[in-house]
Formats: sequence, structure tokens, C-alpha cells
Amino acid sequence: MSERYDIRLSGSGGQGIILMGIILAEAIGIYDGKYVAQTQSYGPEARGGSSKAEVVVSDSDIDYPKALKLDLLVAMDQKACDDYYMDLKPDGTLIVDTTFVKQVPITRAYQIPFTRIAREKFNREMTANIIALGAITRLTSVVSPRAIESAVLSRVPKGTEKLNRDALKAGMAAASKVQKIAFPEIPKEHENEDT
Amino acid sequence: MSERYDIRLSGSGGQGIILMGIILAEAIGIYDGKYVAQTQSYGPEARGGSSKAEVVVSDSDIDYPKALKLDLLVAMDQKACDDYYMDLKPDGTLIVDTTFVKQVPITRAYQIPFTRIAREKFNREMTANIIALGAITRLTSVVSPRAIESAVLSRVPKGTEKLNRDALKAGMAAASKVQKIAFPEIPKEHENEDT
Repeated sequence: MSERYDIRLSGSGGQGIILMGIILAEAIGIYDGKYVAQTQSYGPEARGGSSKAEVVVSDSDIDYPKALKLDLLVAMDQKACDDYYMDLKPDGTLIVDTTFVKQVPITRAYQIPFTRIAREKFNREMTANIIALGAITRLTSVVSPRAIESAVLSRVPKGTEKLNRDALKAGMAAASKVQKIAFPEIPKEHENEDT
Repeated sequence: MSERYDIRLSGSGGQGIILMGIILAEAIGIYDGKYVAQTQSYGPEARGGSSKAEVVVSDSDIDYPKALKLDLLVAMDQKACDDYYMDLKPDGTLIVDTTFVKQVPITRAYQIPFTRIAREKFNREMTANIIALGAITRLTSVVSPRAIESAVLSRVPKGTEKLNRDALKAGMAAASKVQKIAFPEIPKEHENEDT
């Protein structure tokens, strides 16, 4: 059986969740050359202002394109986090925007203030989704850095390429910092003691 | 069983097919209030420059979000038309951009030069997808005129609202003209003769 990797990106309308899904899917599907299905579903909750986009990655043709149990959940606001963290696999990855997610349901979540970084570093809240894409790239191996950069640059409005490339890099940097806190390196001496 | 209406929008990269899918799905899902699933799949064909977006509409929750047999196929280039017209239901609707589709596989296709209209009327090829959305609105009852306009205006770049509203209207007008040729009204006198 082929391996699936199921992703849900979630938040509220205006946070650029759909564009995030499209860019991630194009990066993996067109530039990294894997099979990808990208879906958004609208039902009564769409009128409530919630927004979600799903990306399913596989090394072969994808029969069922909706995300099932999640390997990766990105929650850009509290409601999305509350609604969806139960869909995570036991070893699934949770990434939250701590600008809006104040209560994190599991301790091993990656907590990064995407929107605050967007405001303070770029004076543009709208770049929070691109910063989050940078973090996804660094914290998972689902997409290559080169592919995500190509996909971002092909989708963002003309004239904003530098801004968005910088946003992507800021997301990668923020993720590296968080990763060091979550998984500190074992000092060399200790490694030697064990062997 | 609930009624599904399965749509595939297809063409080549750069024709704005994905955006077309997103706008159509948001119009139907958010503004018209139905259940919608919108999907794009990437496989080896994505590297060939083909682009397709699917929209499934229902009056209840959608289990399987990929399009099955098509109620509506929009083909913005010849390859898309050739690849997908076999997926149409016997009574399905085919709309083609005659700027690029020179060989139409079935006679009852709606044939409109979306890209030529975009060039000649708006001097912007990029509006062809919005013109096509106007035609879809007029030729099917899958989306309301008010919903499609709201969704277009919420997705297009700031400052291009008037251009895109005009493009939408041009698509509706072109569709009305084609519809009259395909289904000419029976003159009043003849109706009277029959009764």
C-alpha cells in the first residue's frame, strides 16, 4: 500500500488559508513531483467564517482526496485548533499560530506567532500564511525548500516577490528556533558516555 | 439520495483555472449556501502544463469530493477538451473556449471565444477565466449571478474590481448570444398554431 501524508490547514476567512493550500500543493505536486490532491469543502460552517484547506500527498495516485487522520495540522486560530486537533494521528504534528491560539491542547505542539511576526517584521498581517509555509518546510519533510520557494513566487502578486521570499525565510528561521527548544541536541560528551 | 452536480474546469497552466475553481466554489458554498467540495489533483500530468480544477455541488454533505461523471465540463484548450469530454454525462454540458479549441467533439457544445474576448474587449488575456465564469452562470443554474459577482470581487486583486465585473458581464452577454443560436425561441405565431 502506498503511503499517504494528510495535511489540514485551518483558520478563519481572510488569513489566506486557501492560497496556502494551493501553494503547498503546487510545491509538492509540480515542483517536487509527487502525487497531491488539494481540497476545500464548504458547508454551513463556511458562513461562520471558518476556513480550511486540505492537502493529501502520496507516491502514487490518490483515490480519496479528503484528509483522513492527520499527519499535520496547522491551526491559525483557536477555533480551528479546538475543532480539529482530535483528527491528528497519535504521532501527528501540530503547528499553531500563538498570536491567536492561546490554549494548546497537546504539549508537543510547535508554537510560533506567525501573525505577530508578519506584523512586526513585515508590517503586513497577510504574510502570516507564507511565514507558516516556511515553518512547515522546516518542521516536516513534506516539501523541499526549493519547491516551496518556486511555488510561492509563482503565486504571489507581482512586485511582492522579495517580501514573500523574506517571509518564507522568517518562517524557516522561527521554526528552527522552536525546534531547538522542543528537541535540544544531546551534547557530544553524553553521546560518548552512552556508547 | 442527494443530487450531485459535478464540474471540471480545465485548460493549461497560466489560464487561471485554479482561481476559477476557487471562485466558483466560494460563490456556491459561501454565497449561495450549498455544500461544495473543490479539488485539484497533481500528478505526472501537472508537469506537462495541464491544469484542472473540480467543483462538486450538493444539497447535503459530500462524501466523495472528486468529480465523477461530469454534468459540466469547461475546456479552455484543445488538449483539455480531448482528454476530458469522454467523462461527460450523456446530457452533460460542454463549454469550450474557441480561441484554442478548434475541434469540438460534440455538436451541442457551447462555443465561446473567451480568450479572444479578453484580448479584444479588455486587453487582458488573464480575464478569460472570469468571462468564462460569467458564461457558466448564464448557461447553467449552478450558481446565482449575485453569488458569482460577490465571489469574484472578494478574490480578485484590489483595484481590478471594475475590470472583473465587466468581464463577468461580458461572459454572460456572450453566453446569452450563443444560447439564442443553440436554442432559438419558437415564434409566438407557431406556438398558437399548435394549440
